[in-house]
Amino acid sequence: MFTSQVQVRVRYAHTDQMGYVYYGNYAEFFEIARLEALRNIGLNYKELEASGVMMPVYELYSRYLAPAAFDDLLTIKVVIKELPSARITFHYEIFNQHEQLIHIGYTTLVFISKENRKPCRAPVQLLKALQPYFE
Amino acid sequence: MFTSQVQVRVRYAHTDQMGYVYYGNYAEFFEIARLEALRNIGLNYKELEASGVMMPVYELYSRYLAPAAFDDLLTIKVVIKELPSARITFHYEIFNQHEQLIHIGYTTLVFISKENRKPCRAPVQLLKALQPYFE
Amino acid sequence: MFTSQVQVRVRYAHTDQMGYVYYGNYAEFFEIARLEALRNIGLNYKELEASGVMMPVYELYSRYLAPAAFDDLLTIKVVIKELPSARITFHYEIFNQHEQLIHIGYTTLVFISKENRKPCRAPVQLLKALQPYFE
Amino acid sequence: MFTSQVQVRVRYAHTDQMGYVYYGNYAEFFEIARLEALRNIGLNYKELEASGVMMPVYELYSRYLAPAAFDDLLTIKVVIKELPSARITFHYEIFNQHEQLIHIGYTTLVFISKENRKPCRAPVQLLKALQPYFE
Repeated sequence: MFTSQVQVRVRYAHTDQMGYVYYGNYAEFFEIARLEALRNIGLNYKELEASGVMMPVYELYSRYLAPAAFDDLLTIKVVIKELPSARITFHYEIFNQHEQLIHIGYTTLVFISKENRKPCRAPVQLLKALQPYFE
Repeated sequence: MFTSQVQVRVRYAHTDQMGYVYYGNYAEFFEIARLEALRNIGLNYKELEASGVMMPVYELYSRYLAPAAFDDLLTIKVVIKELPSARITFHYEIFNQHEQLIHIGYTTLVFISKENRKPCRAPVQLLKALQPYFE
Repeated sequence: MFTSQVQVRVRYAHTDQMGYVYYGNYAEFFEIARLEALRNIGLNYKELEASGVMMPVYELYSRYLAPAAFDDLLTIKVVIKELPSARITFHYEIFNQHEQLIHIGYTTLVFISKENRKPCRAPVQLLKALQPYFE
Repeated sequence: MFTSQVQVRVRYAHTDQMGYVYYGNYAEFFEIARLEALRNIGLNYKELEASGVMMPVYELYSRYLAPAAFDDLLTIKVVIKELPSARITFHYEIFNQHEQLIHIGYTTLVFISKENRKPCRAPVQLLKALQPYFE
């Protein structure tokens, strides 16, 4: 199992008139969390894409347990429970600065060849980087 | 069962460098769809909120079947399958201008009193407006 | 002189915790206004780009005279005062549903070849469509 | 004169189909830059607002000298040239990781009482924190 932690500051731009983070902005938090989690093990998504593989999101799930407010410093725990095959699933738990769990969710991404925009295998460098966490 | 249809134009702002709509922007499309669906039966969410009831999202699910591109004219089919009780669930199907189903999802919203920020009952005007579709 | 009018509904996603439209979202309103203004005279920006010319923004100016609120129905008046040469400038005036002028601004865009990403001339179809308004 | 520096990572969510940062997203970068610049001298905007003063943007200007791309690590130089009176102006210069100046701009903000939503004086704690830089 692979786990990682990333911090995100809530910006004014993220809030809506309820005074909390707009529900659509958690997808961006998830994006930051999974890309920084990969960067933590030496994987740069920009380079993955440059090498010919895009990873569009196939499935998104979010549960809003408690709101996040402007200027909150969120800690996002990212978990990959299985080595990727045709897909890769990232699970997320978001905690605020009071260590309250405020959000859970996951995203499943697929691997698409940049050239022909068809499904392809998980890139070797991704598998290599994750392998040690599943032994 | 209540059903309604709403159209949304994809803007440049919605796209990302894959050349498609960024996955986080579907939440905004869902928001437009459910609020316009309610407006179609005489319900204005702004007035609902002014009357003291907010409807934050509790759960979001999205499945990305095919991408949406800049300038696409999307048709979003909104369905409410059950009369709201403590929660209300909106189901969405998004079709592009070629009548291809590109996205399915749902959002579950709860009712919160604006005054004390605690759960409350569904507003009477919402129940009244939806009642005829469930008889 | 070319003028056109476009309407935009303020969404929940546009608001921030002040209860008004977040200042960064006017750029998207401007985008909608100028693209719909061009569409009104038979010009589709997507086709312009497909024909090889991109129009990135070079300059943006916004003055916030009064706030816009959730669910406001904004009318955006778009004006082109001069035929484009190396650049094209769109001027905007935004009115709310009470006919109050709440925002003024402009954007200057340049023409870039999609192939070599270098400056190029204004596309012929754009000049042809605008010509009648400057005679 | 007060100057400060802040870093921002470009996210996938910031890009559009041109493959660069969407022009409307620089406003959010400016927000991050000015709030972090204030935090660097012990001022927390959230607390300013809680103390009764909001700072809505009155004027925004952006010039796009070169594009920013996904995963770029931007350095934003923030400058305040004059002690605030009825207004405060933040000037910005954005550099990419190759030390190329890619963007300049400014925002002018006003001080509004949260209670009556009318113009008010600059908060004392803001003036006190900035004073040493103008002596």
